[in-house]
This record gives sequence, C-alpha cells and structure tokens, in this order.
Amino acid sequence: MKIPIVENILSANDRLAEENARLLAAEDVLAVNVMASPGAGKTSLIVHTIEALRHRARIGVIEGDVASRVDADTIEALGVPVVQINTGGTCHLDANMVHGSLDQLPLAELDLLLIENVGNLICPTDFALGERIKVMISSIPEGDDKPYKYPAMFAAVQGIVINKIDLLPYVEFDLESFRKLVTGLNSGVQVFEVSCKTGEGIPAWADWLASAIAEMDA
Amino acid sequence: MKIPIVENILSANDRLAEENARLLAAEDVLAVNVMASPGAGKTSLIVHTIEALRHRARIGVIEGDVASRVDADTIEALGVPVVQINTGGTCHLDANMVHGSLDQLPLAELDLLLIENVGNLICPTDFALGERIKVMISSIPEGDDKPYKYPAMFAAVQGIVINKIDLLPYVEFDLESFRKLVTGLNSGVQVFEVSCKTGEGIPAWADWLASAIAEMDA
Repeated sequence: MKIPIVENILSANDRLAEENARLLAAEDVLAVNVMASPGAGKTSLIVHTIEALRHRARIGVIEGDVASRVDADTIEALGVPVVQINTGGTCHLDANMVHGSLDQLPLAELDLLLIENVGNLICPTDFALGERIKVMISSIPEGDDKPYKYPAMFAAVQGIVINKIDLLPYVEFDLESFRKLVTGLNSGVQVFEVSCKTGEGIPAWADWLASAIAEMDA
Repeated sequence: MKIPIVENILSANDRLAEENARLLAAEDVLAVNVMASPGAGKTSLIVHTIEALRHRARIGVIEGDVASRVDADTIEALGVPVVQINTGGTCHLDANMVHGSLDQLPLAELDLLLIENVGNLICPTDFALGERIKVMISSIPEGDDKPYKYPAMFAAVQGIVINKIDLLPYVEFDLESFRKLVTGLNSGVQVFEVSCKTGEGIPAWADWLASAIAEMDA
C-alpha cells in the first residue's frame, strides 16, 4: 500500500506548487529553482547573478538547507530580501516550505525570485515548488559522467550551468562529450559555461534570465 | 499518521541490516559503507584502495547508483568481484538492496567489502546496510562549509576522507577550520587527506582499513 501514499503526497505538493505559481504570476515574479550537488556553487552563482542583474531587476532569494543559515547571511549582506528554510533533515525543498516563505517576501516589489534548493542531485527533481524555470549547476570537479548517473535531474531542467571552468586545466573533464550527453537527455536545454571565481560566462547566463523576466512582463 | 509508517520502514531496514551484518561477520568480511556527494571521488577512492590493498586483502565491491553501470565496469576491469545496484530513482542504498547483492558475491573468499552508496550527503545516513564502518568523502572543491550544512552525515561516520587535496592551490578551502568543524561534530573521527589524482595520502587510509580487517580477524 505504499504507492498510493506517495501519490497522495505528490499531488498535494503539486496543488500547493500551482498555488505558489499563481501567487508569483499575479505579482509578475519569475521564480527559478536552482538545484545542484553540495558544493557545486549554488550560493556563489546566486551572488554573481544578483551582482549582474541588480540594476536590471529586483531580486529576492529563498535559501534551502538541511541546517545552518550561512548562505542566507551571505545573501543578506548584499542587501537583498532573503528567507532561509532549514528542512531539518529533509533532502529537498517542497511547495509547502516555499509557500510559507512567500509570505515573508515583498513579492510586489520583486521581478526575480531565486530559490536555492537543498544540495542533492536526486530528490529535488520530484518536488515542484511553483517555479517557472528549473536550472541545475554541474561543476567541473564533479566529473563529466554525472548525466549518466543522475539522468532525471539533467532531463528536468531548462538550463544547465557548468560551473568552475577555471579548474579545467587541473581536472579531467571532456566538455564536448558532456555537452553531447546532456543534449541526448534534454535536447532543448540551454547550457552555460561559467566560473564563479573569475566571473567568466556570467553575463550570458544573466542575460538569459533577464530575457525570461522580460518575456514574463510582455 | 505518517510517523508510525516511517518508523516501521526504518525498523524493517534495521532488522535486515542486522541480518547482513551477521552474514558478513560469519565470513569475517569487513563491510565499509562509502558515502559522499556526487563527484567527490567515491569510485576513484575505491580503485586506489583496491590497488593499495589487493596483496594484503581479498576485496569485493558493491556499486550503488540511481542509474548506469559505468562504475561497476571500472571496478570489474581491476579483476575484483563487483555487483552494481541501480536504485532506479531511490536516493540511497538500503539493507534490502545490499542483502540481494550479498548472494551474488563470494563472501567466503573476501576480507573487505567496499559498498559505494548513491551520491548524496543526506538520505544515506538514515539507512544502515549491515556495514561495520561508515566513511564519507568530502572533496576540496565542495568547500569547507559542508559540515555546517550536512551535520548528520559528518557526525555518523568513523572516517572522513578529504579528497582532491591536489586542488588546494586553486580553490579556497581552510583545512584547519574544516578539521575543527568536523571534530566539533564528531570527536572520535579519523580524518585522512588524500588525492586520488596523485595518490598522496592513500597509504595512511589503506593502513587504517587493513588494521580494521586485522582487528576483525583477531
């Protein structure tokens, strides 16, 4: 009798995710679900995105972690509204956690809401949050074989940010075969090569987000 | 009524884990549960461990992944008995999956069984497999703040392998503050600094495992 229970949980989550999506659309906020392995650079990418877009868009952030508020402190230092969700052991954000956070953000004053999911390449794929765009970060030191091992995540996203390209000289990583693998799983996906250390590639990624915000307003 | 269901699942897993532990102890096999983020270097560490210990111990491997058999192929090429578990979406190994794999390994001819868990810093902590030792790998590019964010994993293990120390010149990582954080969460833990690229630090790690095998036989 396990399967019906899981189905109920998922559909309850989906209903709440739709409610989040309606709330966000009513305020013209583009919500982006940012997923990745632990340490792939989610917070660093969010920091760079804020710096690149802050004069073009009003940005808010939801930080999801099992424990701690170190990431929220980093974002708060940039003067951006931020809510920290501590899941207390749960391995992903869900629509209910995000729903509770939306109340604490000035949605009417935002254009872009970046939602940093818990560091995990598996579980977050199963839980819609009400986001308009799902992206994942895959970092160079994780290796170019990750699409083989975590295909659902690579297939679920609209954008893939390959981070830490500054480490390419020191790590074995075949960019071309990685891109081929990814395109095989997800033919329409946008792929960005960036370094959150040097800033390389951030403008193209930020422009893509800015276009998505403009589309939403149109 | 959700909590009782979860308790039942856990205790069923614990019962099977104990059965696995008995089976392994009866054959004097030391089982090690190897956990880490995706791309931290679990398979590379297992390859180096086989190379370092193959003349001192008879080694078998269980490879856990959501999908693919690339890791099992790597291990098989070393001439070591290996079973690949594909969890098909599940974010951790459990005692039942390992139980099914033990039947397919020549336990009477093994001293050491390395079990590579699914790449995930959260969920595997909750599922005993019947292992005698839990270890985790935390790699330099993941950053030195991971113990704040995934404290349960860092607290649950007997050994922590800090991998990719060859990248220390190129990545911000404060080894001393990382060690302090880790010891605060887990005072008795053994910490090893290794590079699976250069082989640095592998002998100390391999000696530790060899001592644990010797203790088991004593």
